[in-house]
This record gives sequence, C-alpha cells and structure tokens, in this order.
Amino acid sequence: MVDKISSDSSESAPLLVVGSVAFDNVITPYGSQEGILGGAASYCSFAASYFTQPRMVGVIGNDFGEEYLSRLRNRGIDLEGLQVDKSGPTFFWKGKYHENFNRRDTLDIQLNVFEKFRPDLPQNYLDSKFVLLGNIHPALQMHVLDQLDGSAFVLADTIDLWIETERNALLGLIKKVSLFVINDSEAEELTEENNVILAGKKLREMGPESVIIKKGEHGAVLFHEEGSFALPAYPVTELRDPTGAGDSFAGALIGRLASRNRTDFSSIKEAILYGTCTASLTVEAFGCDRLESAGSSAISQRVEGLKKLISID
Amino acid sequence: MVDKISSDSSESAPLLVVGSVAFDNVITPYGSQEGILGGAASYCSFAASYFTQPRMVGVIGNDFGEEYLSRLRNRGIDLEGLQVDKSGPTFFWKGKYHENFNRRDTLDIQLNVFEKFRPDLPQNYLDSKFVLLGNIHPALQMHVLDQLDGSAFVLADTIDLWIETERNALLGLIKKVSLFVINDSEAEELTEENNVILAGKKLREMGPESVIIKKGEHGAVLFHEEGSFALPAYPVTELRDPTGAGDSFAGALIGRLASRNRTDFSSIKEAILYGTCTASLTVEAFGCDRLESAGSSAISQRVEGLKKLISID
Repeated sequence: MVDKISSDSSESAPLLVVGSVAFDNVITPYGSQEGILGGAASYCSFAASYFTQPRMVGVIGNDFGEEYLSRLRNRGIDLEGLQVDKSGPTFFWKGKYHENFNRRDTLDIQLNVFEKFRPDLPQNYLDSKFVLLGNIHPALQMHVLDQLDGSAFVLADTIDLWIETERNALLGLIKKVSLFVINDSEAEELTEENNVILAGKKLREMGPESVIIKKGEHGAVLFHEEGSFALPAYPVTELRDPTGAGDSFAGALIGRLASRNRTDFSSIKEAILYGTCTASLTVEAFGCDRLESAGSSAISQRVEGLKKLISID
Repeated sequence: MVDKISSDSSESAPLLVVGSVAFDNVITPYGSQEGILGGAASYCSFAASYFTQPRMVGVIGNDFGEEYLSRLRNRGIDLEGLQVDKSGPTFFWKGKYHENFNRRDTLDIQLNVFEKFRPDLPQNYLDSKFVLLGNIHPALQMHVLDQLDGSAFVLADTIDLWIETERNALLGLIKKVSLFVINDSEAEELTEENNVILAGKKLREMGPESVIIKKGEHGAVLFHEEGSFALPAYPVTELRDPTGAGDSFAGALIGRLASRNRTDFSSIKEAILYGTCTASLTVEAFGCDRLESAGSSAISQRVEGLKKLISID
C-alpha cells in the first residue's frame, strides 16, 4: 500500500506522465553527488505518486539497474510505458549551481538512449484523462497529444532551450494545452514582456486555458479565465539542491487534480498549494531523496502551514 | 474634508511621522523629471493621510514654496512640526534607475538644510501613540524616541547606508522598535543570512516585536510572535518610478493601524495589505503625483483586488 494523501473525491482519473529519465551529477555550494536518479519524468512521477498512480513514460538505458526501478515501483508508479533501450546508457546531465542558487551551468550533457526516444504510448494508457508533458522537445510533446483523443486535461512544461531553438513548435503545442507552466525568465523570453503579469496575460492569449508562472523562492502566479491567483513559496530554509523543483511542482499539482478528477479554478488553486509544498521538500536534499522519503504527512503539514502563512484572518 | 478610508474603529490614535523632505531629480527608463517633491516624510505622510491625520516632522529650506506646502495641507497633514530653515535650500537627491528598475544609482546628493536637522518635537506631538521613523540616521531616530514616554507603537525603516556606517547605533535603535521594516537585501546584509526567512527570524531576536521584510515586486513577509504572514505584491503593470514605494508602504501601514488604534497580529496583516496597495499606486507615476491624486477609493479597490488574488477559495 503506497502512502498517499487522501482525496475528498471518490473518483480519481488516470494520469499520464511523459518526460526524461536521467542520471545526474550535481554540484552545489553545499557539496556534490553523482549518479542521482533524475530527469523530469522521475521527479514528476514521484511527486504525483503522493496523490494517484502515475503512468510513467520515458526511456532508460543499459545502466539503469533494478535498484532504481524498485525505487519507482515502491512509490506505486506504473512502469508499463517506461521504455528500456539496451543499446546505450541512460541520459546523463552534470550541472553546477552558483552561490545563491539563482544560476546553474550545464557542465556535461549526454543524450545517450534519449536521443532516439519517441513517447509511444501503450494501449492501456490511451484513456488517460490527465497528462503531464515534461519539458522535452515540443515535437515529442505533440506526439503524445496526437495519440490521445483530445479530451484530457494537459499540463505542459518547457525550458529555455526550446524557446530559443523550437519556438514555432512550442507555440503550436501550447495552443493545445490546458495548463501551461513556465518560469518567470522563460515567460518573459517567450512573450518579450519584462513584467510577469503582462507575460502571463499574453501567454493565455497564445492558447492555453490557464498559465502558471513560477518564480522560484518568490512563489507562483496562476492566470485563469476566472481570475488570477498569487501564492508565495513555502518558506524553505534548508535549500540543498533545486534540481527537480519545477518537475515536483507540476507532478504534485496534476497528481492532486487527477486524484480529485477536478479542473476548475478553485481546484487548480488548491493543487498549486500541494505543488508548492511538494517542491519545497524536493529542494531540501540532493535529487529525489527527500521527495521520495518525505511521506504524505510531510506534504499535508506543509500545506496547512502555507495556508496559515497566507491567511489574512 | 480630506478624502479618507473609513476605519471600522471609533477611536483613532495620533500618528507622528519623522523623516526627510527633499526635492528629487529622477531618471527612469521611461523619462525623467526634476524638482519632484520627495523624501521619506513626504511619501509617508501622503500615504498615511488616507487613513488619519499625520503629524509631519522634517525640515524644509528656502526653496520650498507655498505650492508644495499647500499640497501637503490639502491632504490634511499637520505641519506644526515641519521646521523651516531659511539658511539654505531643501535636501536634494538625483538618481537614475536602470532598465529593469532593480538597481538605482545616486548621481547627486546635497544635504543642505537637512545636514543640521534635529527632530525636536512640538509639545503637542508628545502624546503620539503611533510613530513612523523614516530612514534617517539612527541617532536622529533615537532622538525622537527619547522625547516620548515609551508607550507608542514605533515603526522604523532604514537604508543600507546606516547598516554599513552606523551598525551599532542601528542595532541599539531596533531594540526599542515595535515593528522594524527593511528590504530583503538590507535584511541579509544586516543579519549576514542569505535567506529571507532566516534573516527575519534573526532580526526579531535583535529586539523588535515584529519585522517586515519587503521584497519589492515579490511582496513582503511579516515575522511576528504569533506567526508569519507572506503577501504577494499588488500586480503592477505600469511601473514608472519606484521612488517612495517603501515609504508609502510604511506610511499607509501605520496610518491604517493608527486609524483603528490596533496593533495585534491580525491588524498588522490587514495593514500590510493597505501598505502594499498604496505603494502600488505610488510607483505608477513620478514622485508623489499618483499617490496624492489616487483617492481613497483607488486604494480600497486594490485591497479588494489583492484579497481576491490571494484567496484560495
């Protein structure tokens, strides 16, 4: 029995998570660690697993041992869609964070089996009603949507690389997205607005029903047809490794929505609280360690704490 | 009859505001303006005047014409404590903001009559129950407190200059303060913590009952015995001149508290909403222009908008 946060809804809806699986070497001002289980699909799935059973689609190579698979299985993650490519090693990334964690450099990147990855969905996954498109190439994200019937609630994330090199593909994709999640500097780059509020409004005009702009330690802002919602970040004092914070945010957010089978404004706002608090746990240790081990009660406690922090009564 | 926001309390308590009065020349990416009525006491008093009748203490020189005095009088500001020194011109500051408004350079500063300023209080002001100490020299701030009987609720602001040159005097002052207000970079400088949450906790240990750390466009965080409170900024899309934002925040905040004669946790949280929204008006025009002319209904509307923006229901 996987430790989960109980949903007040009786009906959860199936959630599909698509993204990279990686081994990371991470250097921070507090130290470094090698061979970390990483990649958007891993963080997203671990985070979502506190709310529902995510279907994880990605690719692993010939160096992805049983010990890693069992970590995913132990959180109840459905691995039917996880492709195994024995022709080479798993996607590898090495990065270094600077003193204040605001900037990171990629020191090495080896696509390996990820280079030929195509997110073909197992037949069993075609009825997914919630979809998280991690920040892979927009053409791959679109390939996922092409296999579905168009009725799912789709959250898509991206990175600056695609804004700079695949702008048109990205603009095509976000037209088809229910909820587009992006960080502040990327939002400003994509919209050419230097104000988060204006950028958020402009992004909504590009197609997605809703937009969330993430501001790291300064929280997040939701732009929705029914209004906006601004939430401060959970107050983290033990920042150790920011890798995967955005993926954990998105995974928990859509996991919460899927577990309640709700997509209305108020439910998205509530889900952002869960995303924020789950991400706040991730960054307190290297890789997925804290995220995996924190337990649902740690998330629930932080959500209560965050509600208190923003309460004006 | 001065346009004010009605308070639900029958009893307002007298508010004293002490700070600089200045003429500013300001250059921003949107243009420049000369001879702007500025200084902390001006912004604080204009902001507070939407809630109560502030008693303004500062000094003006021989170039401070009747047209400026009547602007202050028109907002009902009590000028009995405003000293007139005919020996020279008013304090002058010239500054330039950079592209993203995150940094400003002081291009010229002439203390003029402010150099010999001592905030001696008129007899009539000694019963002030709320005191706003603008960001003047800590010794002058202390001189104000020395004239009072110690029962007032005291809000003090500061600037990086005093942290760097008058650290001991500043540390002595903040021990005697009810609410210390400081921006994020200054808080980190004063506490030598690179995390806003840790900095806020450490500042409270230095003496003040409560601490507010201002994060500009990212809002503010209150640290109080009964808990913390994080508030996003009001979403400004027409930033024109950030000068006086912090002073307007502090002036409206303590004006609201004085108008209700309340200093409890919940009342401080509510007053921060008023401070945030009043400051959001200030920055939409050069100098005090928008702050002076906005009207109480503009502030009230923004407070309602901000409450909606942070509501999770």
